[in-house]
Amino acid sequence: MSYQPINLAQKFGLFVEQWQPKVIAEMNDYQFKIVKLEGDFVWHDHQDTDETFIVLDGELRIDFRDGAVTLGAGEMFVVPKGVEHKPYAAKETKVMLIEPRGVKNTGHEGGERTAENDVWI
Amino acid sequence: MSYQPINLAQKFGLFVEQWQPKVIAEMNDYQFKIVKLEGDFVWHDHQDTDETFIVLDGELRIDFRDGAVTLGAGEMFVVPKGVEHKPYAAKETKVMLIEPRGVKNTGHEGGERTAENDVWI
Repeated sequence: MSYQPINLAQKFGLFVEQWQPKVIAEMNDYQFKIVKLEGDFVWHDHQDTDETFIVLDGELRIDFRDGAVTLGAGEMFVVPKGVEHKPYAAKETKVMLIEPRGVKNTGHEGGERTAENDVWI
Repeated sequence: MSYQPINLAQKFGLFVEQWQPKVIAEMNDYQFKIVKLEGDFVWHDHQDTDETFIVLDGELRIDFRDGAVTLGAGEMFVVPKGVEHKPYAAKETKVMLIEPRGVKNTGHEGGERTAENDVWI
C-alpha cells in the first residue's frame, strides 16, 4: 500500500486566504490545522480545551490579559483552557493549531473572524 | 506575567541520548514529546490510540506490514491505532511525537528500546 507523508509547506501552498484554518490531519478526536495569520484576532477563550500553537514561519504574538508570549519559527505554546488570548502577527505568519475536532476559532465570541470549521485541504 | 515559548531546537540541545522521548508540553491529556532516533525500532502498535510523528530534522521511514512512508523535515504522519509499525532512521533524526499521556513507546512489545515514560525536559 502507498502511504503519503503530509508535507506542511506543500499544504500551505494550496491556499492564500488568512484566518481560515484548514485541517490537514486527525489523531483520534484531535485535528491538526494550518492557518495563515496577519493582523489582529479577537479576544476569546476555549472553555473546554487547551489549544496548541506551533509557528512554522513568521512571528506570532499571543496576548493574554496579564502578559504575552512571542513565538518565532520552531516555537510552540499551549494556551490553557479558559484563558483569554488574542493572537497577533505583524506580517503573515504560518501556524499549525492542534485542538479537539469541533473547536471554533473564536470560542464563543463570534464575529467576522469566525471561520468555517472542519475544512480539509 | 512572563510567558515563555517552547523552542524546539533549544529543547533538542538539552540531551544527546537516542530513543528516549522527552515531554516538552501537554495539551489536555496529550503530550508533545521530542526524540532523537537512529537505526531500527521494534515492530509494535498502540491498541488504544493514533500516534503522530512530525519530523523536524533528518529522515524517518515508518515501515508498515504492507508498505512504508518516508518523512523528511517538515513532514508528518498519523499512524492509526492498532496498525503495526516500525520506525527507522539511517542517520540521527529529530522527531516530535504527539499522543495521549501514558502511551508506552514500544506498545505492549517491551524490550530494550522501551523508554521511561513521562520524562520532562
